[in-house]
Amino acid sequence: MRRIILSIDEPISKEKLVEMEDGLAAVKVGWPLILSIGVDGVNKLLTGLGLKKIFDLKLADIDNTMNLIVEKLKPMADAFIAHSFIGVRGSLGSLNLQGRELYLVLSMSHPGWNESFYPYLREVAMEVNPEGLVAPATRPSVIRKVREDFPTKVVISPGVGAQGAEPGDAICSGADYEIMGRAIYLSERPVEKLREITKKMEDRLYECKRAKDRPR
Amino acid sequence: MRRIILSIDEPISKEKLVEMEDGLAAVKVGWPLILSIGVDGVNKLLTGLGLKKIFDLKLADIDNTMNLIVEKLKPMADAFIAHSFIGVRGSLGSLNLQGRELYLVLSMSHPGWNESFYPYLREVAMEVNPEGLVAPATRPSVIRKVREDFPTKVVISPGVGAQGAEPGDAICSGADYEIMGRAIYLSERPVEKLREITKKMEDRLYECKRAKDRPR
Repeated sequence: MRRIILSIDEPISKEKLVEMEDGLAAVKVGWPLILSIGVDGVNKLLTGLGLKKIFDLKLADIDNTMNLIVEKLKPMADAFIAHSFIGVRGSLGSLNLQGRELYLVLSMSHPGWNESFYPYLREVAMEVNPEGLVAPATRPSVIRKVREDFPTKVVISPGVGAQGAEPGDAICSGADYEIMGRAIYLSERPVEKLREITKKMEDRLYECKRAKDRPR
Repeated sequence: MRRIILSIDEPISKEKLVEMEDGLAAVKVGWPLILSIGVDGVNKLLTGLGLKKIFDLKLADIDNTMNLIVEKLKPMADAFIAHSFIGVRGSLGSLNLQGRELYLVLSMSHPGWNESFYPYLREVAMEVNPEGLVAPATRPSVIRKVREDFPTKVVISPGVGAQGAEPGDAICSGADYEIMGRAIYLSERPVEKLREITKKMEDRLYECKRAKDRPR
């Protein structure tokens, strides 16, 4: 069971990443890492890894700008994350991902996110029809809603660890994968930490599966 | 009168940029340029220019991620552009710009932008109290609304040229500066093009000033 996506915001050694490979479903990289080690550095770090590479750029601009960004990063990317709030015409509707997957943000993990946007963001996601959706582990009721509205989409969920949710919480609510970063890579022994978190998650999933199977 | 902000999305020679310096109010750089020439390349391009440097990153993430981005780029930046829709708590409210200016996006130039967000985005901008605001030349009624709601803020306006608005339109509606990119830097003679656009803008401003002064 590989349900953890490693979010890498700060430089990490390739050796450590390769050691973790078997325990991960994907890696997610964003602007902070690109700024730290450059496009070439990211390319070197990710080349040869047998993991899906998700570029979490929170794209939220006009089509021309987003397409220039995708063009530069597509050689090393399997998927891109964009904000659904940016809308369809002149933006997401003419985003050219050249075969890469799209994940749309439907909700965020921080307290200041305005959840009343949800019906509109859902409408955008229905129209754009991306491969996946992003919804936060810190808002289980939102994950349940997203799962109900998009039963066949891949749902990935940030906010586990440093931001407060427990491993397994988001999957118990309907997500497919949980995104963790600092809790793992800032640890002195990231490989052991990943194993420990995976065990915690499995226990939690066993519990919630049992809870679901229980007659009411 | 320097009312034009040059948006640089693609590599441009420093020589050409220095030639244009006197005709510009500021330069705006974004992710496509950073990906093309790297952080060092952008630094070299901008160092020594006597112009305000606005980093248009459309920041739209949790505070920790945005702060990592600002940390890397602050040595060469005077201002950063962020999306107001991302909200205050855990995001814009704890964005640490270390003395740089903040410009918040209140509306965008593409047709798919949902203008019904405006009252909420205005509320966010009132709370965050940035130095400036971004509103599109393609929506003059929005610029008028922004100017009315924020009489003392600097309003910068994209969407002129390639996206359809005419030079001077946004300033006539209440903006302070107009952002142009491709219309200038894709021209064979960018310096002449800038001069020509500035002249067009001055004519338009003279006309609209006259229109405003006319007794009704």
